[in-house]
Amino acid sequence: MAVGSADLPKLREALPLDAVLTEAPQLEPYRRDRALDPDAGTPLAVVLPRTTAEVQAAVRWAAEHRVPIVPRGAGTGLSGGSTALDGCLVIGTERMRAIEIDERTRTVVVQPGLLNAELKAAVAERGLWYPPDPASFEICSIGGNIATNAGGLCCVKYGVTADYVLGLEVVLADGRAVRLGRGLVKDVAGLSLLQLFVGSEGTLGIVTEVTLRLLPTPPTHRTVAAWFRSTEDAAEAIAEIAAAVRPSMLEYMDRAAVNAVEDQLALGLNREAAGFVLAGTDDAGPDARELTTILAILRAHDPISVEETTPERGERLASARRAAIPAVEAKGRLLLEDVGVAIPRLPELIHGVEAIARANDVTIAFIAHAGDGNTHPLVVFDPDDPAEGRGRTAPTARS
Amino acid sequence: MAVGSADLPKLREALPLDAVLTEAPQLEPYRRDRALDPDAGTPLAVVLPRTTAEVQAAVRWAAEHRVPIVPRGAGTGLSGGSTALDGCLVIGTERMRAIEIDERTRTVVVQPGLLNAELKAAVAERGLWYPPDPASFEICSIGGNIATNAGGLCCVKYGVTADYVLGLEVVLADGRAVRLGRGLVKDVAGLSLLQLFVGSEGTLGIVTEVTLRLLPTPPTHRTVAAWFRSTEDAAEAIAEIAAAVRPSMLEYMDRAAVNAVEDQLALGLNREAAGFVLAGTDDAGPDARELTTILAILRAHDPISVEETTPERGERLASARRAAIPAVEAKGRLLLEDVGVAIPRLPELIHGVEAIARANDVTIAFIAHAGDGNTHPLVVFDPDDPAEGRGRTAPTARS
Ligand SMILES: Cc1cc2nc3c(=O)[nH]c(=O)nc-3n(C[C@H](O)[C@H](O)[C@H](O)COP(=O)(O)OP(=O)(O)OC[C@H]3O[C@@H](n4cnc5c(N)ncnc54)[C@H](O)[C@@H]3O)c2cc1C
Ligand SMILES: Cc1cc2nc3c(=O)[nH]c(=O)nc-3n(C[C@H](O)[C@H](O)[C@H](O)COP(=O)(O)OP(=O)(O)OC[C@H]3O[C@@H](n4cnc5c(N)ncnc54)[C@H](O)[C@@H]3O)c2cc1C
Repeated sequence: MAVGSADLPKLREALPLDAVLTEAPQLEPYRRDRALDPDAGTPLAVVLPRTTAEVQAAVRWAAEHRVPIVPRGAGTGLSGGSTALDGCLVIGTERMRAIEIDERTRTVVVQPGLLNAELKAAVAERGLWYPPDPASFEICSIGGNIATNAGGLCCVKYGVTADYVLGLEVVLADGRAVRLGRGLVKDVAGLSLLQLFVGSEGTLGIVTEVTLRLLPTPPTHRTVAAWFRSTEDAAEAIAEIAAAVRPSMLEYMDRAAVNAVEDQLALGLNREAAGFVLAGTDDAGPDARELTTILAILRAHDPISVEETTPERGERLASARRAAIPAVEAKGRLLLEDVGVAIPRLPELIHGVEAIARANDVTIAFIAHAGDGNTHPLVVFDPDDPAEGRGRTAPTARS
Repeated sequence: MAVGSADLPKLREALPLDAVLTEAPQLEPYRRDRALDPDAGTPLAVVLPRTTAEVQAAVRWAAEHRVPIVPRGAGTGLSGGSTALDGCLVIGTERMRAIEIDERTRTVVVQPGLLNAELKAAVAERGLWYPPDPASFEICSIGGNIATNAGGLCCVKYGVTADYVLGLEVVLADGRAVRLGRGLVKDVAGLSLLQLFVGSEGTLGIVTEVTLRLLPTPPTHRTVAAWFRSTEDAAEAIAEIAAAVRPSMLEYMDRAAVNAVEDQLALGLNREAAGFVLAGTDDAGPDARELTTILAILRAHDPISVEETTPERGERLASARRAAIPAVEAKGRLLLEDVGVAIPRLPELIHGVEAIARANDVTIAFIAHAGDGNTHPLVVFDPDDPAEGRGRTAPTARS
């Protein structure tokens, strides 16, 4: 069956007037995510449904006309998962933002387009907490978080998105809507198709409703920052902290990342240090054992300085860490890698990346959710330099 | 292809001499799990491998001869998952018990036949903790825990087995061994076949090696016990506690269960109370906020008595709760149900089960991992009474 604009009237019939975009300028913002794929195609149309039924109508149309579907949340993905294909149908969830909180069961039901930050804020008003906090939490959607099993700063202690998903409604490729999980904390019967969907990057269907587990008010954190002369010292301190306590945050940035952030935010970060470690603990014990241990380990690794922060300063340093990717991106075109590693091998990885950067005379900034071994080497290159880039002009990032 | 004892020589050739059992008395203990299915079949043979290669050899033989396989851990399952079929091959993991602890990454690699209690003890020697604690932890295997995604007393706060599995080696139906997950804390790439295997009850393959995440030494718990005049009061106290704090344990037993346990253990449990609640907290904060809140809620629901326990007494009461299933089992033949419920609906469920018990004049003891809504109505019946049982003699439980 050939696909052409001729099929679009049927799609329009099935959906509200304003839910279908087909004009070139309307389509442009939906071609790429933050991976900024230079080979991104142009969709035939973009559908912005408000309800599960509207998602189903769009999917049924696509199935009938064999049009490939690209599900899209907020488009902050770094691995190109919502890059459009030529002639595809983008189904974007940005208008699906309903939320319903149940304090008694400490659960929340949301539509997938709700931003992570909007969810956090809404449940905080009821004294509840949704832990997963990707660095992009202010701009990414819950549906995208589920499709990528997003992790973040507090995940080293509080787990990733998968640990909070109790139920999903998903629309399958033929337009059927099915429910996975029953929204219960303990629920083991049959294969866990629920967990199979988490991290499936939109390949198995479109998430149209999500039931999430919440925790009571977040504990208070104590944050410690340390600056090191060598990346080895920093990496070894991290590995020791991770083995000795259960930090609620354990983040790393190298000099290139710190300088990129400092250029933008002017927080008084130490531009000379080779490595920066930001560690948090929410151990509320009377003897503050975790805090004492963390400080002792940091001090044992020949730091330039160690800073016990106030809560405000701690939060500012955490946002400095969260700002790292866009800050490095401002320095040139970014090739972002995502490397998981066992924490004892972190020193080796950092060392290896440094060697590659030196050998190829290219900047590779290095940041990490160090406590769970989730690292991002950020390769900065010039796309117009044929030796470095692909020899063509790349699109610029939307912020 | 017909299956007969004629094929057995080939199986014997592929495996060590002592790994293949075929004599009727040897087969008998492998016919049933703790569901005690009266319709259990008799296996053609039982294989007790020591290595992944031996599991593969057995599976390849079964695939070639189209013999159904029943994987078996320690046989403590309550839902009949390791019940033998006539002419099947039981592959039991009881000899696969190797363990290797890595303190630096706080992970452990085990063979599936290791008992949960053996794992806990081995890692405790290194100051580490494996939280999942099914009430059967002293007698069930890690492989069985993974295949059933076992939960337990501390799971209300610390999560179920799935939350601790970082990697699996599994032997598929054709005898191939594959690795799922890379043993890393954060590892999101591709579909999570790892999590699909957790809870798959042996239907997708045989788990031959497991990488698990550990926590540092368990926190110290404070345990509170309360006795109630009515099951309603108990159930409502539970729902309020679950909504107000994050208990590290929140268990329930009704009068029938308490009396069955007291008959066996003589711990001085209150035989008159309608409902018994056992709540734990590991909130180490200086103001013991959680403990205070739990006590206040229990006292607000007209309890007969509330007991703040010593650690020893708390552990004894927890083992009383763990002893409930075998204790009730000693009263007659058991039909064990497993019902997950949202916690605010717990009172309604308890009430409904009581009504059914009354209407049918049958004993239904009721116990629950109440904090995560995982309940067990325990129907006690006489199999020789045609009105109650199936009119035939059932096998007796192995202990
Ligand atoms: C500055 C910055 C920092 C970041 N930091 C982190 C971090 O710390 N941790 C982390 O994990 N990620 C991080 N990311 C990556 C990204 O924000 C996350 O992957 C996020 O979960 C994507 O959400 P989204 O709504 O933007 O999804 P999109 O980018 O729109 O989509 C992501 C994928 O999910 C699919 N998808 C989206 N919605 C649905 C749906 N409803 N149903 C089915 N499939 C769907 C898409 O098809 C695509 O494959 C960061 C990104 C940026 C730009
Ligand atoms: C007194 C008592 C209390 C209990 N309390 C709890 C509780 O609190 N929480 C709870 O969750 N359960 C509980 N159980 C049930 C049971 O102990 C658990 O389900 C346990 O995980 C089963 O482990 P097992 O080694 O005995 O497995 P088995 O009973 O031998 O097998 C269970 C299932 O797993 C499969 N299987 C076993 N090993 C493997 C393997 N290596 N690869 C693939 N599949 C495999 C089997 O085919 C079967 O389907 C209790 C049981 C008893 C008797």
